[in-house]
Amino acid sequence: MTLHRFLAACRRQPADATPVWFMRQAGRYMAEYRAIRERYGFLDMVKTPELAAEITMQPLLAFPLDAAIIFADILPLLEGIGLQLTYEQGEGPVIHNPLRSSADIAALHDADPRETAAYTIQAIRLVKRELEGRAPLIGFSGAPFTLAAYAIEGGSSRDHRLTKALMYAEPQAWRDLMERLTTQVSAYLIAQIEAGADAVQLFDSWAGALAPGDYAEYVLPFVQKCIIQVRAGCGVVPPPPIIYFGVGMSGMLGLLRQTDADVIGLDWRIYLDDGWAQVGPGVAVQGNLDPHTLLAPWPEVRRRAADILDRAAGRPGHIFNLGHGIVPETPVDTVRRLAEFVHEYSAE
Amino acid sequence: MTLHRFLAACRRQPADATPVWFMRQAGRYMAEYRAIRERYGFLDMVKTPELAAEITMQPLLAFPLDAAIIFADILPLLEGIGLQLTYEQGEGPVIHNPLRSSADIAALHDADPRETAAYTIQAIRLVKRELEGRAPLIGFSGAPFTLAAYAIEGGSSRDHRLTKALMYAEPQAWRDLMERLTTQVSAYLIAQIEAGADAVQLFDSWAGALAPGDYAEYVLPFVQKCIIQVRAGCGVVPPPPIIYFGVGMSGMLGLLRQTDADVIGLDWRIYLDDGWAQVGPGVAVQGNLDPHTLLAPWPEVRRRAADILDRAAGRPGHIFNLGHGIVPETPVDTVRRLAEFVHEYSAE
Repeated sequence: MTLHRFLAACRRQPADATPVWFMRQAGRYMAEYRAIRERYGFLDMVKTPELAAEITMQPLLAFPLDAAIIFADILPLLEGIGLQLTYEQGEGPVIHNPLRSSADIAALHDADPRETAAYTIQAIRLVKRELEGRAPLIGFSGAPFTLAAYAIEGGSSRDHRLTKALMYAEPQAWRDLMERLTTQVSAYLIAQIEAGADAVQLFDSWAGALAPGDYAEYVLPFVQKCIIQVRAGCGVVPPPPIIYFGVGMSGMLGLLRQTDADVIGLDWRIYLDDGWAQVGPGVAVQGNLDPHTLLAPWPEVRRRAADILDRAAGRPGHIFNLGHGIVPETPVDTVRRLAEFVHEYSAE
Repeated sequence: MTLHRFLAACRRQPADATPVWFMRQAGRYMAEYRAIRERYGFLDMVKTPELAAEITMQPLLAFPLDAAIIFADILPLLEGIGLQLTYEQGEGPVIHNPLRSSADIAALHDADPRETAAYTIQAIRLVKRELEGRAPLIGFSGAPFTLAAYAIEGGSSRDHRLTKALMYAEPQAWRDLMERLTTQVSAYLIAQIEAGADAVQLFDSWAGALAPGDYAEYVLPFVQKCIIQVRAGCGVVPPPPIIYFGVGMSGMLGLLRQTDADVIGLDWRIYLDDGWAQVGPGVAVQGNLDPHTLLAPWPEVRRRAADILDRAAGRPGHIFNLGHGIVPETPVDTVRRLAEFVHEYSAE
C-alpha cells in the first residue's frame, strides 16, 4: 500500500505532490462552520463528538486537502486536572482559578485524558470512519509549556510575565507543573493514536516568548520526554509522525531540532530554506505562508506560495501549510485555489 | 580625546568595559518618573522640553549607565502630517483618523519635524547641556514601517491585518506612504543630530510581523534610504552611529544587515552569538536580555547577563541592553545591580 503523500512527507519520503493542510482549516472563515457556531457555544462544539466530527470534515469536503485535523481545543485538558475554564464572548479563554503559587500547583489532581477528553477521542473515532482512508487524520495537543502558560496567566497574554516570574522564582514548582502536564499530554496523544490518529501535532504556540536559554532549560526537556513517551506508549510500529510547532522561534530552530520531532512547523517569519537549513537534514518541515497573505489578491498569494515551494524543491519532506492558523476574514475561494495550486505547482 | 565606551562599541572599537543602557530606562519602574507622571499626561511630558529633559536624566542620575536616550514618543511625528493622536487611559495610543485607503494617504500633508516635534529637539538641547559630556545622548524615531502600521491600524495591533491588507492590495499607495514617512523620519533624525544627539536609534518594533520576503520588498528599501539620507544630511563627519532595532526578527537577520545600520539591536529570542553570526562581522550588536528576566531573583539575572557577555566576549562591538523595553514591575535595585555587573564582569 502506498503511503499517503502527507505521511510520506512526514517521513521524508518522495511524494507525487507536496501535501497541504492548513492550521485552523475548520473555522469561522467557512459558512458551514459559522452555521453550526450560531447554534452552539465553542466548548459545546468541542465536547459533542458528532459536532466535532462534522466540523472536522467540513474543509475536507470543500477543498483538496491532504490531511484532516481533529476539531478540538487545547484547554479542556486543563479542566481535567482542576482548572475552571470558560470562553467569554470576544475575550477568548478565561481560567477562573489560575495557578499563581506552588500551593496552587500542588493542589492540581491527576486525571486520565481518556476520560476527561473522552469526547475528542470519540470524535476521532467518528472522523476515522467517515474518512474511510481518504486522508490521514492529525490529532493534537497543546505542548506542556503552552498549557502551563495558559494555566498561570489565566488566559492569553502578550508578555507571559507571570509565567516567567513563577518559572524563575519557583523552579521546583515549575518542574512539578511541567511534569504533570507532560504526563497529561503524553497520555492524551497516546489515546488519540489508539483511537486512530495517523499523526499528532504538539502546538507550542507561546514558547516563542522565551529566550533560547530559558527554553532549553525549562521547556525542551519536557517536550523531549513527551515525544519519547508517546512513541514508546502508543503501541504502533513505526510510531505515527510527531509534528512540533512553535511561533516566534526562528532564532532557536537548533533547539527545536533537539525535540526529536519528525516534523518541525515553521511560522512565517523566516524563509523556508533558511529555516530548514537550521533544523538540519534529518527533519521534515511544515509551513510557512503568512496567514494574512490569504487576504491579498490571488496573484500575490500565488507568487508567495510559489516562492515557498521553490525554496523546498529538490528534497522530500515538505508539508505546505500556513505559518499560523487561518484568520476568520480569509476568502474561501483563496483557500481552495491555494490548495489546488500547491498540488499543481509541486507536481510539475 | 578618548571615545566614550558606548560610541566606541558602536564603531566596533575596543572599550574598557561593555557599555550598557536600557530601552525605556526612563519609565514607570522609577519612583522619580511616577512622581512626574502623576501630575502630567504622557504627551504633556513628551511635549514639555523641561519635563522631557528631567525624565531623560533620571536614570542617568540613578544608575551607572553609558548612554542617555531622549524621553520622547514615536507617534507625534504622525500628528505633524495630519493624524489625530490621543493616549487613552489603559489603552495606549489611539489614532482617531487611521489611514484606510489611498485617498487617506494622499490627503496627508507635509510638515517639517523641526517644527512639529520642536519640543523634542529642544529637549535634546537641554539634556546635552545637563550631561556636559558625561554620557552620549541617543536620539530616536520610529522606523517608517512601524509608523505606517500605527497610522493604518489606529493603534497597537496583534496581527497588523489592516496594514498587510493595504500593502498587498494597494502597493502604490503603500509606497507613497512609506516615501512620505521616510522623508519625515530622515528629517527628524537629522534635526536631532543637529541639536546634539550623539547616536540615533530606529525602532522598527512591528516589522517582525512580516514574512522576510515582504520585509525585503515593502520595508527594507525605505530603511536603507532613510539611513543614507541621515548620513548624508546630518552634516557630521563621520556621521553618528545608527542603531536599527526590530522585535521578532531573528529569522531575518541577514536582511537587517542590509539596512547598513552601524548597530543591530537583537531581541531576546536568539542567543547573542547566533544573532551576531547571522548579521555578520562588520556590524555591532546591541542586546539582548529578556526584560522579564529582571523580575527574577538576582542570581538568575546575573547568570543570564553573564551568559550574554560570555557570548559576546573576544570581539569589540557589543552594547549590553535588554531585548525590549524595561517593564513597569521591574525592581529598581535589579536595574542598578545589572548595570554595575555588566561593567565589572566585562572589565575582568
